[in-house]
Amino acid sequence: MEIFKQNESGVRSYCRSFPVVFNKALGAELFSADGTRYIDFLAGAGTLNYGHNHPVLKQALLDYIENDGLTHGLDMYSKAKERFLETFNRIILKPRGMQDYLVQFTGPTGTNAVEAALKLARKVTGRSNVISFTNGFHGCSLAALAATGNEHHRGGAGTALNDVSRMPYANYFGKEVSTIAMMKKLLEDPSSGVDTPAAVIVEVVQGEGGLNTASADWLRQLEKLCRQHGMLLIVDDIQAGCGRTGSFFSFEDMGVQPDIVTLSKSLSGYGLPFAVVLLKNELDQWKPGEHNGTFRGNNHAFVTAAAAFEHFWQSEDFALSVREKGQRIRIRMEQIARRHAGSKLFVKGRGMMLGISCPDGESAGRICELAFGKGLVIETSGNHSQVVKCLCPLVISEEQIDRAMDILDEAFAEVFDDAGSTRKAS
Amino acid sequence: MEIFKQNESGVRSYCRSFPVVFNKALGAELFSADGTRYIDFLAGAGTLNYGHNHPVLKQALLDYIENDGLTHGLDMYSKAKERFLETFNRIILKPRGMQDYLVQFTGPTGTNAVEAALKLARKVTGRSNVISFTNGFHGCSLAALAATGNEHHRGGAGTALNDVSRMPYANYFGKEVSTIAMMKKLLEDPSSGVDTPAAVIVEVVQGEGGLNTASADWLRQLEKLCRQHGMLLIVDDIQAGCGRTGSFFSFEDMGVQPDIVTLSKSLSGYGLPFAVVLLKNELDQWKPGEHNGTFRGNNHAFVTAAAAFEHFWQSEDFALSVREKGQRIRIRMEQIARRHAGSKLFVKGRGMMLGISCPDGESAGRICELAFGKGLVIETSGNHSQVVKCLCPLVISEEQIDRAMDILDEAFAEVFDDAGSTRKAS
Amino acid sequence: MEIFKQNESGVRSYCRSFPVVFNKALGAELFSADGTRYIDFLAGAGTLNYGHNHPVLKQALLDYIENDGLTHGLDMYSKAKERFLETFNRIILKPRGMQDYLVQFTGPTGTNAVEAALKLARKVTGRSNVISFTNGFHGCSLAALAATGNEHHRGGAGTALNDVSRMPYANYFGKEVSTIAMMKKLLEDPSSGVDTPAAVIVEVVQGEGGLNTASADWLRQLEKLCRQHGMLLIVDDIQAGCGRTGSFFSFEDMGVQPDIVTLSKSLSGYGLPFAVVLLKNELDQWKPGEHNGTFRGNNHAFVTAAAAFEHFWQSEDFALSVREKGQRIRIRMEQIARRHAGSKLFVKGRGMMLGISCPDGESAGRICELAFGKGLVIETSGNHSQVVKCLCPLVISEEQIDRAMDILDEAFAEVFDDAGSTRKAS
Amino acid sequence: MEIFKQNESGVRSYCRSFPVVFNKALGAELFSADGTRYIDFLAGAGTLNYGHNHPVLKQALLDYIENDGLTHGLDMYSKAKERFLETFNRIILKPRGMQDYLVQFTGPTGTNAVEAALKLARKVTGRSNVISFTNGFHGCSLAALAATGNEHHRGGAGTALNDVSRMPYANYFGKEVSTIAMMKKLLEDPSSGVDTPAAVIVEVVQGEGGLNTASADWLRQLEKLCRQHGMLLIVDDIQAGCGRTGSFFSFEDMGVQPDIVTLSKSLSGYGLPFAVVLLKNELDQWKPGEHNGTFRGNNHAFVTAAAAFEHFWQSEDFALSVREKGQRIRIRMEQIARRHAGSKLFVKGRGMMLGISCPDGESAGRICELAFGKGLVIETSGNHSQVVKCLCPLVISEEQIDRAMDILDEAFAEVFDDAGSTRKAS
Repeated sequence: MEIFKQNESGVRSYCRSFPVVFNKALGAELFSADGTRYIDFLAGAGTLNYGHNHPVLKQALLDYIENDGLTHGLDMYSKAKERFLETFNRIILKPRGMQDYLVQFTGPTGTNAVEAALKLARKVTGRSNVISFTNGFHGCSLAALAATGNEHHRGGAGTALNDVSRMPYANYFGKEVSTIAMMKKLLEDPSSGVDTPAAVIVEVVQGEGGLNTASADWLRQLEKLCRQHGMLLIVDDIQAGCGRTGSFFSFEDMGVQPDIVTLSKSLSGYGLPFAVVLLKNELDQWKPGEHNGTFRGNNHAFVTAAAAFEHFWQSEDFALSVREKGQRIRIRMEQIARRHAGSKLFVKGRGMMLGISCPDGESAGRICELAFGKGLVIETSGNHSQVVKCLCPLVISEEQIDRAMDILDEAFAEVFDDAGSTRKAS
Repeated sequence: MEIFKQNESGVRSYCRSFPVVFNKALGAELFSADGTRYIDFLAGAGTLNYGHNHPVLKQALLDYIENDGLTHGLDMYSKAKERFLETFNRIILKPRGMQDYLVQFTGPTGTNAVEAALKLARKVTGRSNVISFTNGFHGCSLAALAATGNEHHRGGAGTALNDVSRMPYANYFGKEVSTIAMMKKLLEDPSSGVDTPAAVIVEVVQGEGGLNTASADWLRQLEKLCRQHGMLLIVDDIQAGCGRTGSFFSFEDMGVQPDIVTLSKSLSGYGLPFAVVLLKNELDQWKPGEHNGTFRGNNHAFVTAAAAFEHFWQSEDFALSVREKGQRIRIRMEQIARRHAGSKLFVKGRGMMLGISCPDGESAGRICELAFGKGLVIETSGNHSQVVKCLCPLVISEEQIDRAMDILDEAFAEVFDDAGSTRKAS
Repeated sequence: MEIFKQNESGVRSYCRSFPVVFNKALGAELFSADGTRYIDFLAGAGTLNYGHNHPVLKQALLDYIENDGLTHGLDMYSKAKERFLETFNRIILKPRGMQDYLVQFTGPTGTNAVEAALKLARKVTGRSNVISFTNGFHGCSLAALAATGNEHHRGGAGTALNDVSRMPYANYFGKEVSTIAMMKKLLEDPSSGVDTPAAVIVEVVQGEGGLNTASADWLRQLEKLCRQHGMLLIVDDIQAGCGRTGSFFSFEDMGVQPDIVTLSKSLSGYGLPFAVVLLKNELDQWKPGEHNGTFRGNNHAFVTAAAAFEHFWQSEDFALSVREKGQRIRIRMEQIARRHAGSKLFVKGRGMMLGISCPDGESAGRICELAFGKGLVIETSGNHSQVVKCLCPLVISEEQIDRAMDILDEAFAEVFDDAGSTRKAS
Repeated sequence: MEIFKQNESGVRSYCRSFPVVFNKALGAELFSADGTRYIDFLAGAGTLNYGHNHPVLKQALLDYIENDGLTHGLDMYSKAKERFLETFNRIILKPRGMQDYLVQFTGPTGTNAVEAALKLARKVTGRSNVISFTNGFHGCSLAALAATGNEHHRGGAGTALNDVSRMPYANYFGKEVSTIAMMKKLLEDPSSGVDTPAAVIVEVVQGEGGLNTASADWLRQLEKLCRQHGMLLIVDDIQAGCGRTGSFFSFEDMGVQPDIVTLSKSLSGYGLPFAVVLLKNELDQWKPGEHNGTFRGNNHAFVTAAAAFEHFWQSEDFALSVREKGQRIRIRMEQIARRHAGSKLFVKGRGMMLGISCPDGESAGRICELAFGKGLVIETSGNHSQVVKCLCPLVISEEQIDRAMDILDEAFAEVFDDAGSTRKAS
């Protein structure tokens, strides 16, 4: 590993938690160069919902490459893009009543999709202010970073992070305090100092923020507030989308119609860089090329994404299995939490986007470290890195889940000794 | 093509100039779905220096995928990354005396690399202002956009584009006026209002700006100015790098040592999204994860990039061939320019980054339109879109060059009738 | 009045409510050119605490002018400035334990003092963010405007209003919700997105914001929060200071020690432009001339201010009289509010900074209009201009108070008919 | 002087150069507390064009105060304001063909007038960028500071200074280089990165910047550029106006019609805080109170300003005398410069706004120090404080001029020894 230390910038991060060289990966498993096998509960921070190198997607990609399919074509029309648009519309959008949304292919990263979404909202409304939420994470390029809460990331900006009004997320001040009512008062008060925003950008589940969830009711009230003040509702579904919460979009069945949706991470299905912005037809005020970039439209990703839509989303089965597996994981998590009741652990999240909140970042970090020693790749999230976050591939088997949860169980026990000793005794 | 119009945002742009659906591509040629063949003088705006789907790179990629090599792993260590770092250091950096530069893997787009470079420069110097140049193009996310000159792109920002002082590029005010001397005066004057910048960001050849070139002498003076004022020198080599100008970096043999270099576009060699920031060892003040992103480190791109280094850059032959082909193209271009002497055409650029400047964007656009009808994909660049820009794959054959130049010749003749009639008569 | 309409910009405002030409003024009374007499319950929006043209101050000023005392001397030393500093320190600061505060003479307006205070706080802490409050008013130059809540004023900026985090003022969300606890949570959460501020700027009574008051307890908690996070506490005492609340500073006896205090309005005592920033000795990191301006240090104002300190503040009598008159006004106001109980009127404010909150701006505006017709100059404040604001000179006589309150009583009765009819009947 | 050191912030500056306590002042002379007499060649940095405590203005002010004229009335109508508007229009504006300009009374400082002017220009045009010039000085509040060039002042901002494009002033790059042509190229180039500005703000003579002058031709070209690009032309006449250059406005007879003019400093004529913005009628898009402030409209200043218009500007005599005295001073300055030819001194400026440029700030500062010891109050200006600036009252007598120039002559001789010895020998 000397080569990484000598040649790569110190900005590298995940590799510090998992100091082995990975070689191969399949489904929910990673293999290091020496053949050690790891269950993957990180899954590319939500990029590998269909697991590593899924065989169906792999074959589609191999065929495409073998046949010299267009790999790079800027934003020119390609057969692969055509098929992506067709399947996306037919399999994903239409059944959800979203067939009128247009697709914008941005640079193939989440942060780029967020930049485009904020730009469009500001352009369409002629306003510059944007509401984003406590503990929200939207990316590291400048406009997205301004909307991001994390001070570690914000601290690196080196220039002003402006035109964002920060509002408290659902339940930020406890379950009794309506953060919607707060926003409403601030927005209706002409001397509040909160200039009417172009848009609100929100995650339905805050992945990096520590698996905080917004209820359907809160979201509907938020949408109502948006309508009252002419603000656009942007749902950043980069981490929570593509099936993670048990439906393709995290906001399905919640009774809201976002104006703009950002998707990335698992959208290609194969871990390939890819991102889109979905926008309501009437908002499409973009001039040709106004927001552009070399890699907007990744043909390899078009191929695997279309294959993923066909394979996973033609019926309800996949979504159902996600909800079931989520339930299986949650049950084990709650057992762990109860076992260490004195440590005030609790389970957070939704679908297969779950975590256990620890008293502090130190214990959570120690648990992940121990788990890695036992063959489980897992990370923390949250404002104090206090949440042990389970973000395994949605295609994981029940056996793999059980093995991973056993490992977690042991790791929690080792950290929270008292409970641990209790458990060993039983 | 109805599906694109119905489902894709109007922001799409290149496809408007080339309204066919592409299917396959090989080397310097594109094939539309109906089998029509096009010579590609756009090459992904500089992303396809080694041509489409180069067989050596293709095989390396197929092998990697077949074997379930790690596709996505955030910034974890992988065999593919190891090989990339090893070959990049051994084949590219070391022979150029740059073995001490560190590699930062940013999100896989040029704009993200620029965001990281600007962030680092501001962080390291504790200053916020940055100098960028007239007609510079650095990307469309907010910090990069602030450094970009183009008003079409700037106009979409919707929020302030700040902390950039705009300076005139080499020869901007004509050959007689030293823009370095101007900058020097402004920087040495404590009341000039130009706050001492963190960095200067510069393209050695301005691709989007219209193939404006900076001389070695100008660059050396710029570097000297940087040293005098403690500013970092950032070379944005995203379009001009990876061999385009006849050497791997555009600034090789110019006697300058940039503090930071951004690379993307042709770095993967296969058109895959990929970008890095090279930084002098002593500038690596990044904290782990301070600038992050899901797709920083694209393993497929590692594989093809390493294969490209091995295949093209182990000897001087490839670079030599680029310079020769560049000369071949330039000769034809100058013939065209002379033939229409009354239209004040002239040749711009360096290496295989060449163009013919027309009197206006209308005539240049018409030429590209005519060329496309004759089987040549080619685009304009420049502040008035007045430069017909030849950015063909570096691996193009002499025959393909000749065929493309014949097409161009005809197109110019059709547009600049008078000269055209002269030519037909001869 | 034709001359004003023809020659003065439409930005003029108060003159629209009081469309007469004033000529003379004495104590609590204004006289129009035709000799009509008005009681002044506006008092230069808090600038005339000692009334118009107070004879003692007038004589001091006349003597100074007669003797060719230095009128303008930039920030050079003058006898008048010396006397100001001596009396201010001896009579005001020392008895309040504030003898160690330094005085900065800024441009002679409140907004300039606020600009200087924010600048210093940012300079000393090296942070750029500042907390200001809902309904706060701090001025109309750019940095002060960013801290101001009022959208009418903010809307005129034409450029970004940045580096301010808006927080809810005391009781903004009702008496049950601790806005300090909210701020505390946001400041302690490293992912809240609220960057640690350089300072908090607060009015102890929000004059323009509608006479909202902060309790001593709230202020002490705010100060504690400042200490915990290394933020400076800036009290903007421009409107509430100089005796208005019943003590020289609005925060006296509240147990807080602001780091910086801004004073203006009634500081000269005679309505002359004048402003200072008080700063704790250890914060004086200004370089000579770093914040400057032509009129910093108005010698005429030095003369009248020193005379005012000597005349009004050598004993407790004046402050006592302010509290008594305030009580007299409040009693009458509460009678009015009770009389129109159905209209949900209520009394707001502290000391002689009092107002009656009406259901809306329309009724409040109508009351002021009616009052003016009856010989009372009075204005509204508040986010909806719904508060009829009594800001009479502190030197007003009890008779004048009674007369003014009778006028107000009638005006309220005319507007809130039902109650009015009730009252007439009784 | 201990009291100043103990009680006043270290931000004080001019007093450091002139460490005596001034007491009285009359005409062109200052008197310290111990009776020492000084000729004033600083004149409140251009605030005392009619000298200290001019008897005519003094009597008008005394009468007004004696009669309890309205001192403070916010922006309410007053007889004093009426008289100001009437005389200003009749005596100043109308004879110069400017009778259609409206007057906006801003806060009584130059920086506030500049804030208002920039705000209005941005509001009217809907653009945020503003062009200001190298070595320009416009004030220290945030928006004005962004337009100011001086790094000493800019460095204190603590927050971003944005939305200003800096352009080179007339002759900044030497007499051969047309800075208008440069601006023109940048503004006409859609990829220059210089966003079309709302306005250009310019001083016709840069007082603080070192007495740099713009020619009528340059200004006319600048105005033409403004018209071509829909930018407003703002002349900041705060220091150069009110007769300083030999006419009331510095741009009279130059053939330009600014859209907006800022005036302050000598406008009251008596050294009282006062500032106005003049704006073309059709630009008056202000909403009532949109830019406000407590001291906008200083009645004492209205009185003295009107008296000054009547006394000095009813005939051409005063302006003529200024030009004659300017010539008298210039001749002596040129003699001094010639006498020390080896030191490359040269005379700068226009009218009675003149200075001698020294090789560096050190020698210029030493000259001022020596001059003060000999009874002359004089200061430096310029980007390196290298210009000894003569800004005496316009009412100074020829005898006083001669005496002051003798002192300067001696001081220059003492500093530039060689020349000094030569002179003594002769």
